[in-house]
Amino acid sequence: MSHTARLAELGIVIPEVVPPVAAYVPAVVTGRYVYTSGQLPMRDGAMIAEGLVGSDVDPEVAKDCARQSAINALAAAASVIGSLDRVTRVVKVVGFVASAPGFTAQPAVINGASELLLEIFGDAGRHARSAVGVSGLPINAPVEVEMVLEVAD
Amino acid sequence: MSHTARLAELGIVIPEVVPPVAAYVPAVVTGRYVYTSGQLPMRDGAMIAEGLVGSDVDPEVAKDCARQSAINALAAAASVIGSLDRVTRVVKVVGFVASAPGFTAQPAVINGASELLLEIFGDAGRHARSAVGVSGLPINAPVEVEMVLEVAD
Amino acid sequence: MSHTARLAELGIVIPEVVPPVAAYVPAVVTGRYVYTSGQLPMRDGAMIAEGLVGSDVDPEVAKDCARQSAINALAAAASVIGSLDRVTRVVKVVGFVASAPGFTAQPAVINGASELLLEIFGDAGRHARSAVGVSGLPINAPVEVEMVLEVAD
Repeated sequence: MSHTARLAELGIVIPEVVPPVAAYVPAVVTGRYVYTSGQLPMRDGAMIAEGLVGSDVDPEVAKDCARQSAINALAAAASVIGSLDRVTRVVKVVGFVASAPGFTAQPAVINGASELLLEIFGDAGRHARSAVGVSGLPINAPVEVEMVLEVAD
Repeated sequence: MSHTARLAELGIVIPEVVPPVAAYVPAVVTGRYVYTSGQLPMRDGAMIAEGLVGSDVDPEVAKDCARQSAINALAAAASVIGSLDRVTRVVKVVGFVASAPGFTAQPAVINGASELLLEIFGDAGRHARSAVGVSGLPINAPVEVEMVLEVAD
Repeated sequence: MSHTARLAELGIVIPEVVPPVAAYVPAVVTGRYVYTSGQLPMRDGAMIAEGLVGSDVDPEVAKDCARQSAINALAAAASVIGSLDRVTRVVKVVGFVASAPGFTAQPAVINGASELLLEIFGDAGRHARSAVGVSGLPINAPVEVEMVLEVAD
């Protein structure tokens, strides 16, 4: 099954790309790779949640934020490669979690992104990953996700 | 116009590379890519500002720090590829902003780096980017910027 | 001398790969590159230290944590490329240090990783690097290290 057919089966709609909040582009393709910009949990033009995970934002909500950020990263990738069917491997994901003091469950949060990638891409979605807790993110987002994807020539 | 001619027109001088503060090198070239080390806002041997953005450091000063860090990243790249005229695309920029609690305007700060890259490289300077707020940076720098550049063979 | 011979000479044992704490894989190989996941300072199944560097964790202990995280990153790489003798260059290291407020000696901490790479790989171990202070890391780790390695075809 193609990746786009799998997306349809899962009922996941890849939105129009979220415009960058500053002087850069959503994604760059170079050789066989796509680098996405860090993506925030915007859905239908609004942030799903705001603030620090572990105080302002519940970890389960933050996991959904990570999932939405990953969807937006795929939207960014699709905007430069045309179709996600060209993706041959998700290489790397970095997940930044705006974390309240003492919050250390970043992996469970970023699983929202990782599990989505496995659902969509299967074995090609098995990626290397770093999850870290940061002190704050753009426009008070609780999560930011960036990716490197390998694509067919 | 070549990238170096554009630098001259803009009056931007790429300095000698800032020596790493530890056991690594300023940049590595591999295949058609240059990876720079994270660069700090050193100018003429001194840090432009120190501390957390949003409390110790004004966001406008921090934006200038991001611009200087980007200049230092280009110096690092030039030290391994010879001339910046070989750059065919700025692929990715990551900007770390040492952020006071509650500071969430990292994009405006890192625009200091992004806008510089657009000025110098034009369309080839349009890059993917992540901006995040961190709790502290080496030797109390307010900003750290790293890049991946694509270069001609 | 091969890299594995050098490891033996140094008395460094590359352990079995530490299983990811979530839905991803330890490392991905793509083209001539290996991307590792962020690695924590696990040794013999337990974290060497826990908490924030500069308050809970002494910087010298944190440096050992960075060294162990780098060893685990090499274990992750070895799990996908077979032998570390295939490594032709350490391209990039990112070191995240869970930092107490005001702690800015991240470079000295991450030198634990960088110095290890130079010891093992010699000139091929000279890498680009970013070191940043973050507010918290998975399962209360003081340090997390990720790498990009270039490998022979």
